[in-house]
This record gives sequence, C-alpha cells and structure tokens, in this order.
Amino acid sequence: MVTDSEIAELEAIVGKENVSTRSSDLDGHSVDESWVEPHRPDVVVWPASAEAISSILRLANERRTPVVPWSGGSSLEGNPIPVEGGIVLAMYRMNEIVDIREDDLQVVVQPGVVYDDLNGRLRRMGMFFPPAPGSSDVATIGGMVANNSSGMRAFKYGVTRDYVLKLDVVLPNGELVTVGGNAKKSTSGYDLVSLFVGSEGTLGVVSEITLRLAGLPEKVGAAVAVFDELARATSAVYECARYGLAASALEILDSATVRAINLQQGLSLAEAPTLFLEFDGTQTGVEEQIEYARELCADNGCVDFQVALTAEAYEKLWSGRREAHDSIKLSHPGCTMIAGDVCVPISKFGEMIEFAHALSQRLDLSLYAFGHAGDGNLHTEIIAHRENGDQFSRALWATDEIVGHALELGGTVAGEHGVGFAKRQFMSREHGRTLQLMRSIKDLLDPKGIMNPGKIFPG
Amino acid sequence: MVTDSEIAELEAIVGKENVSTRSSDLDGHSVDESWVEPHRPDVVVWPASAEAISSILRLANERRTPVVPWSGGSSLEGNPIPVEGGIVLAMYRMNEIVDIREDDLQVVVQPGVVYDDLNGRLRRMGMFFPPAPGSSDVATIGGMVANNSSGMRAFKYGVTRDYVLKLDVVLPNGELVTVGGNAKKSTSGYDLVSLFVGSEGTLGVVSEITLRLAGLPEKVGAAVAVFDELARATSAVYECARYGLAASALEILDSATVRAINLQQGLSLAEAPTLFLEFDGTQTGVEEQIEYARELCADNGCVDFQVALTAEAYEKLWSGRREAHDSIKLSHPGCTMIAGDVCVPISKFGEMIEFAHALSQRLDLSLYAFGHAGDGNLHTEIIAHRENGDQFSRALWATDEIVGHALELGGTVAGEHGVGFAKRQFMSREHGRTLQLMRSIKDLLDPKGIMNPGKIFPG
Repeated sequence: MVTDSEIAELEAIVGKENVSTRSSDLDGHSVDESWVEPHRPDVVVWPASAEAISSILRLANERRTPVVPWSGGSSLEGNPIPVEGGIVLAMYRMNEIVDIREDDLQVVVQPGVVYDDLNGRLRRMGMFFPPAPGSSDVATIGGMVANNSSGMRAFKYGVTRDYVLKLDVVLPNGELVTVGGNAKKSTSGYDLVSLFVGSEGTLGVVSEITLRLAGLPEKVGAAVAVFDELARATSAVYECARYGLAASALEILDSATVRAINLQQGLSLAEAPTLFLEFDGTQTGVEEQIEYARELCADNGCVDFQVALTAEAYEKLWSGRREAHDSIKLSHPGCTMIAGDVCVPISKFGEMIEFAHALSQRLDLSLYAFGHAGDGNLHTEIIAHRENGDQFSRALWATDEIVGHALELGGTVAGEHGVGFAKRQFMSREHGRTLQLMRSIKDLLDPKGIMNPGKIFPG
Repeated sequence: MVTDSEIAELEAIVGKENVSTRSSDLDGHSVDESWVEPHRPDVVVWPASAEAISSILRLANERRTPVVPWSGGSSLEGNPIPVEGGIVLAMYRMNEIVDIREDDLQVVVQPGVVYDDLNGRLRRMGMFFPPAPGSSDVATIGGMVANNSSGMRAFKYGVTRDYVLKLDVVLPNGELVTVGGNAKKSTSGYDLVSLFVGSEGTLGVVSEITLRLAGLPEKVGAAVAVFDELARATSAVYECARYGLAASALEILDSATVRAINLQQGLSLAEAPTLFLEFDGTQTGVEEQIEYARELCADNGCVDFQVALTAEAYEKLWSGRREAHDSIKLSHPGCTMIAGDVCVPISKFGEMIEFAHALSQRLDLSLYAFGHAGDGNLHTEIIAHRENGDQFSRALWATDEIVGHALELGGTVAGEHGVGFAKRQFMSREHGRTLQLMRSIKDLLDPKGIMNPGKIFPG
C-alpha cells in the first residue's frame, strides 16, 4: 500500500499534476488487452526524465513498493497489470524522438513513442524500424523493448531485440546505466542489451532507446494463396522457408479468420485456409519472388493465387490480414477474446494448428487460428462470455492446453506476447531448473523484488 | 597449480589417455593467433561428454583451479590463452554433428565441429550457417559461440548470436543447464542464450549447440569496384546501406592489402582502394542488385567496376578477399601481425580508416586496413618484429590508439574478435559503471572465478 507520505514524496519529485489517485486513472491502468482480471495500482505517476524515474525507484526500493512500468497498455498476457498494486509508472508522455542519426541509420527515442508514429517520421527519410507488431498503432517502442515484440515481418527482418543497440536503464536501486552502444555489432563483454530486452519491466525501467534502422525497400508486393486444406498451406510455407524465399511475411489464416475478415471488412476472399505473402525489394526482385512463390504454392495444391503489385492492390489485399484481430473482435461484441501465442519448430506448425482446431471442436468453442507461419508462431483467439462461467473456464483451459501442446512439440509458451501474468504458471515446465538461473539474475538486479512483481516467475 | 592428486582425479574422470602434461601439449595450448605472450596451462584435458565436463568443473571449483575452454585456438585477442595456468579443457574432439533437423532448418552440434566442415555437410542439403568467420577452415562452432564470431556476411545475415537457438551449458559448479529452445523466436523469460553467446568461456562451458539455418540462395555473384580515394569507397558503402541494397558482403580493402593479395595470389588487381561486393538470391535479383551497386559506385567516382556472375569468375575474384589475412602474413615472414578489430557507427568508418593510416605513417609502421564496411567493422594488421622491441612497442601502442579512437567515435573496442586478454584494459573506458553489472553477473555464475580468469575484465 502506498502511503500518503509516499504520495507527497512522489509529488515532490514529478509535480502534483503528474501524480494521480483518481479512480478513472487507477481503472485506466488496471487492465491491458488480455483476459486477465483487472487490478488497480495505488497511484499513477507520469515521469518526464530518467532522473525523475531514478528518484521514484529509489523511494520505492526503500519502502519495497511495487513499481510497474506502463507504456501502450496493449499487452496481451497481463504484462503491465499491477497485480500487487503499488505505483504505475506511466511512460507514454515521454514520447520524444530525441535524435534521428540519419548517417548511421539509427534513431534515439524515448519509450513512449508509438511504433506507427516513429515509422511515419522515418518513412520520409527512406528508413524504417521493421518489427511491425500487430498493434502498431498503439504499441510504444518502450513496450516493444519490454516484450521483445514482433509481428509479421519477423520472418525476414527479425524481432525488436535485433534492432536495439543501446538502452538507458534505471535499475531498481535508482542507478542509471547505459548498456550497449552505437556500433552495429560488438563483442565487447556480456550482451546486457539482450538481457533487458524482453524482461518485461522486471529488471529496471528503460528511459531511452537507440535503434538501428533499415533502408526502405524500393517496392512492396503481395500475394494471397488459397488452399483447400490447412496442411497444404503449411507445407507451402515450409517450402518457402526451405528454398530461401526471402518473403517479408508469410501468414496463415484459417477459414474462420477469413470469414471474419470478409464480414467486417466487406471483402470477398474465399473462405478457406489462406496464405498471405508479402515481398519487398527491387521491382524485378519482388515480381520474381512472387512467381517463385506461385510455383511452390501450386506444387502444394494451391487452388487460387492472387497477386497485388500496385500499392493500391497491395493495400486492399493486405488490409484484410492486418485487420484480422479487430475483425474477430467486432464479430463477437460483448465477448472476451483470449489471445494465444505459441511458437513451435516450423515443421510442427501444421500439427499445432490442427490440435487447436480439434480441441475447440471437442470443447464447443469458437476458435480462430492465424499466425506467422514462417516463424512457427501461431496465434489463436478463443471467444467466450466472461459471464458464462463454464464457457469461460473451458476457453481458458483450452488456451492452456494449446500452450502445453506447444511445449510437447518442442516449442515455447510465448512467441511474441511475453509471459506476463497469464503464462507464468508454465515457466517451470518450459525451462525446468534454468528458471532458477533467471530468478537469480532477477534477485541480483532487483533484490527487493519491486519491479513488476507477479510477472514472468510463477508465484 | 594443479596437483598430482588433481591430475589423478582428472584421469579417473576422462581416462589416462585424455589427460596430458606433456610439454608439446602444454605448448600447443599456450598460444592462439594473437600477439599475446604464450602462457602454458598445467594440464590439458580432452573430455568426451557434458557429464565429464561437469565432473571436471566440480573438481576445479572445489579447488579453485582455473579452467579454460579451448576449441579452435584461432582467437585473435588471447581469448583462450590460460594466462593463470590451470586446466585447458580441449573441446575439439567433441566434434560430432549430432542431428540435422532438416524439417526445422536446424542443426545440433558438439562445440568442436569446424565451421567449413559443418557447412560442407549442410550444403548438400541446401542449407547453411551464414556467419562466415575469416578463419572458417579452423574456427569451431564452440569458439564461434564463445566469441559471437562473424565475418563478411554479417551485413546481410547477422552474427553467430542471431543463429543460436539452444545451448547446453555446464555451469562452473558442475550443474548442467539448457538455455533457449527449438522455437525460432521466443519471448519466454530472460534471454540467457544471448548472455552465454560471446561470454568467452567466462560463465561456463558449452557442451552442445542448436543452430537455426538458412536456405542456400540459388545464385551468388560478386563485383569489385576500384576507387582512387578511400573516402569515395566508404561513401559508396554508406549509400549501399542507406538505399537498402541487400548485399551479402560489402568489404573495403586499402591499397596495401590489395598489393599483398596481388603479390601472394598472383592476381593483378588495381592497387587502389577497393570495394568487394557479394550478392546472393535469385539469378535476376543478383544481376539487378549488381547493376544498382554499379550506379551507386559510379556516383561516388568509381574508376573500375568488374562483375563476376559465373561461379568460376566469382571464385577467382573473391578468393583474393578471402586470402587477405594470409596474404599479408606471407608478405612478412618472421614478423608478428597485430590484428585490430574495432567497429564504429557506419558514418565514421572512413574517418576510422584515415586515422589508422595517418597514425601508421607517423609511427613508420606497416599497416594494412580492410573490413566489413557495411557494418562499420574495421580490421587493421600492423606488422612488427617481436625482437625489435622499439618497433613492437610502437605497433602495440598504435593498435591501442586505434581502439581509443574508435571509442571517441562512439564505437566499440571489439567488433568480432572479442575482448580476451588483449582488450580487457579498455573495458572500463567503453562501459564505465556498467562493467560492474557485467562483473556482478560473472560473480553470480562463477563465484570462485575459475572460468577463463584474466579475460574480459581488467585485472
């Protein structure tokens, strides 16, 4: 519990106007986009600088007050929900693009910068930050660093971690450190950058981020391939990866997902297992890759293959995929969507999707499955009424079964959404005794356990 | 000092035939490819399994005996030299390719497998492990993991760390842990894989490695562009990176390096600043990229541009670049080559090379400069007679000045050779107080300090 005297101290650090205990603010920071039960913080604080964060953490560390960094609030596993109360450190007002180092293909940002806003600025200069999370219009760079976010372009371009060069981090004791540097590659000591990226705010608070960027490709093109069986779509994806096709995205959508898109976006895609492919590069390079992809798809029994080479056609085709999540949501007003996110070795992707389908049928649940097939990363959305206790439990149980099956197939419980609160129960099963090693690093950096408690590690 | 009773215990663990205190064996494991003074271990042990390594570490940990893992011995900063004596754990007989998981584009290897041998096996199956260290014919996968090695293809394909999915590690107390997993991407907990990769054997001993692989491109092509000024070659490289050219290698060689290649390889390249470019992908994609590169080079005053599209022409052209290091060595028999390896933000690459040239002139030293310009990674080779004390000191001093200048330009002291023994003195300057954070992780995992002591951290 945060005391009145502590609140007064917080006000002294950041100013009265940047501290709130109003119900609306506490409620607004009690949920993310997951199914996890809301939990209010005691207080919300909006810092404006690393120095302010440092003072806040020093204070919290002394009193063992939980501190939960909050940026976009779009997490999907309860990652920023303050399950043990305490202080929410709202980072989203620290949203400056500090420096665009064009000559080095680098950018320096504060954690609250939104992904799409950043790329909008960079686009004019011919550069971009590629990881493309699904929630790109709200996801912040700070949140992406915390969760090591990624999305459709990970197949070609990798994940957030691959682009983070340097971080300013405030450690739980208030100490300010800089990890990493401005060189594109380095073998100078331990890779602390990779340790902080993906640590979900449990090791410290990131106050500034330097990213390396990519040059914008000359041309982007897309194709949509329709299959009569999911297994054939997954074989096509495997062959694309196997034969070195450099697609920038390889996405599988099941029939249910395509139906939702048609319904909500007014499209008329064939309601069958569908593969969305995106290519970028030079004009001829893109055309050539698409032709190669067409062959590979045909070899695997593709029944329809549409190409979009103009920007307009691309936009029309691809917006369907981009809006998949929202289309499903809109199709079930008043329901909770329980988002799944597992990643398996690519040869097991088809088996994973089939398992999810069979399970939902057996349990009489609405399930949508789609994912970044080129990486083996499967998303499921199970729909349930929270008020229908039996259905809701079945939905949670099914989500857990899917996670368990991913582990049996040699996969991971979290492909790109992180562990947060919802998946911490699986950590021992995935990591065994190695979890203890993670915990000892947590204890080393945060001996009093104030940073985002109740996350990643099972209770 | 390793006692007789300890040697008897080692013999009991691995068998008498796998323990040696013979002079020739001690000498053979007292040097790497760096200029660092030799230092003998007390004993060399060849383990055959993780269990044997575990028993050896348990024993060493009890007695606080230094343990230095040794794989290819081709390091360039004294990384595996047992500067405090103790046990050399020779890993190179653990050289099995354990499992090629073709369907997942993964391979499982023991640490002693040599890079070229692995890619030779994989090539027949249409796959490869891309990082391509300069010493690919002797570098082992274990050593590459220890040093986070890379080379010419890092510009497009990244470094060793980007391919390591899973590691079996024996911790200094003998505990066996597995970090990472078989999914291509994961956000499940802290990234311990990245922590062990590049830790240069200071945190434990890697006993098995799972790598993800890439599909072999259909076509490889090359070009060589000659410039009359180094600054123009570096501008061309910057523009290649800036405009999204997906070259698989972008290498700059100075005139001296080209001269050495001509002399030793019987080639007749123009002895001027030269840019080697490599492209891979589809046939047309490669041709198109080369034409684009030709334009960018022409814009920057390129005076000659040769293309090699056939395998034969490629081999002839590119073997020159590949043999650069050896050509320099052969040009100076009886001399020591002091290898430099810094990495700076790409806009500073030209300045870095100019600094090195001016310095060597001022100090009357033979210096060769070449590097992975697309990454900002510069290698220098300074030639000196060890017997000529004054010259040798000047050469070491110059190498240090180059490192210092890289730091001033916002770079790193170690681009791809690691810190080892030779660069540990710079770690405080590069990392400041953050070095303490690295040290606390070292102390956490290796409280008795037995693993490769005297490396990475300044004495």
